[in-house]
Amino acid sequence: MDYKKFIKIVDNWPKEGIEFKDITPWMDNGEAFKSAVNEIVDFAKEKDIDIVVGPEARGFIIGCPVSYALGIGFAPVRKEGKLPREVIKVDYGLEYGKNVLTIHKDAIKPGQRVLITDDLLATGGTIEATIKLVEELGGVVVGCAFLIELSYLHGLDKLKDYEVLALVKY
Amino acid sequence: MDYKKFIKIVDNWPKEGIEFKDITPWMDNGEAFKSAVNEIVDFAKEKDIDIVVGPEARGFIIGCPVSYALGIGFAPVRKEGKLPREVIKVDYGLEYGKNVLTIHKDAIKPGQRVLITDDLLATGGTIEATIKLVEELGGVVVGCAFLIELSYLHGLDKLKDYEVLALVKY
Repeated sequence: MDYKKFIKIVDNWPKEGIEFKDITPWMDNGEAFKSAVNEIVDFAKEKDIDIVVGPEARGFIIGCPVSYALGIGFAPVRKEGKLPREVIKVDYGLEYGKNVLTIHKDAIKPGQRVLITDDLLATGGTIEATIKLVEELGGVVVGCAFLIELSYLHGLDKLKDYEVLALVKY
Repeated sequence: MDYKKFIKIVDNWPKEGIEFKDITPWMDNGEAFKSAVNEIVDFAKEKDIDIVVGPEARGFIIGCPVSYALGIGFAPVRKEGKLPREVIKVDYGLEYGKNVLTIHKDAIKPGQRVLITDDLLATGGTIEATIKLVEELGGVVVGCAFLIELSYLHGLDKLKDYEVLALVKY
């Protein structure tokens, strides 16, 4: 399916010089949404995955249906102060701005095989931070799946040791 | 399924006097997560729904798999400044604090039948604000589905005109 027609490019958002890729029209279309999730599910099926992990909030949009389709759990990675119990955390820089991400200490059991999902691979900062959290808990990252990869930002350089799926590339 | 065993009660979070219901252990369990989504899907199936709407971020956790299972779209409701294109917005008070919610102007077409999902019905402020956004765009709210209802906060009083499903009640 040609997913690009469901992505709206918003110039200079959230700040000057960024060409934001808005996936909401993609999610709004039931057929395009289902097709995207199914492609990620197919990618995941060969990997004997125990749990899906996604950073808030757009990582939930993709990761939760993937987990549902596979019949496995989903563990959220959230910004600081959003998870109520004991967390581990990591600082990271992202395409624009800086942030802290956290995960519950009991979200992943050591040895669990993990698929990480997010909407967009840009510089790779968010996904690198998410991988760090998962691995610190003893999880084994067996794949990273994105709707979109901005190849001109070279996020893949940070993911050389991992298998990556991106449905759309710019 | 007895979902309560998957909910962790966190006292005095995010502020003194709140008994926070943490659903992350529920999502972490593939079987419990799938069962919950399927119950909401069954509730939705009778209603000829066109699109699912959920407020960030926990509304995505439930709403996106429901939309995937039904083969229909999902439209996110987000805090101010998070959606990149033209939005309408609404101010609201919630169980703790105050907020502004927004939705893209083109997220719902007039006459579309909408299911609203969120993790928790507390005082009903978030869901009332979400309904207001959907109805302002001409959507018809045909049901609201939650994982949890805090019945002692009387959120149902704000939803008298709507069909409501809550999987767990406190």
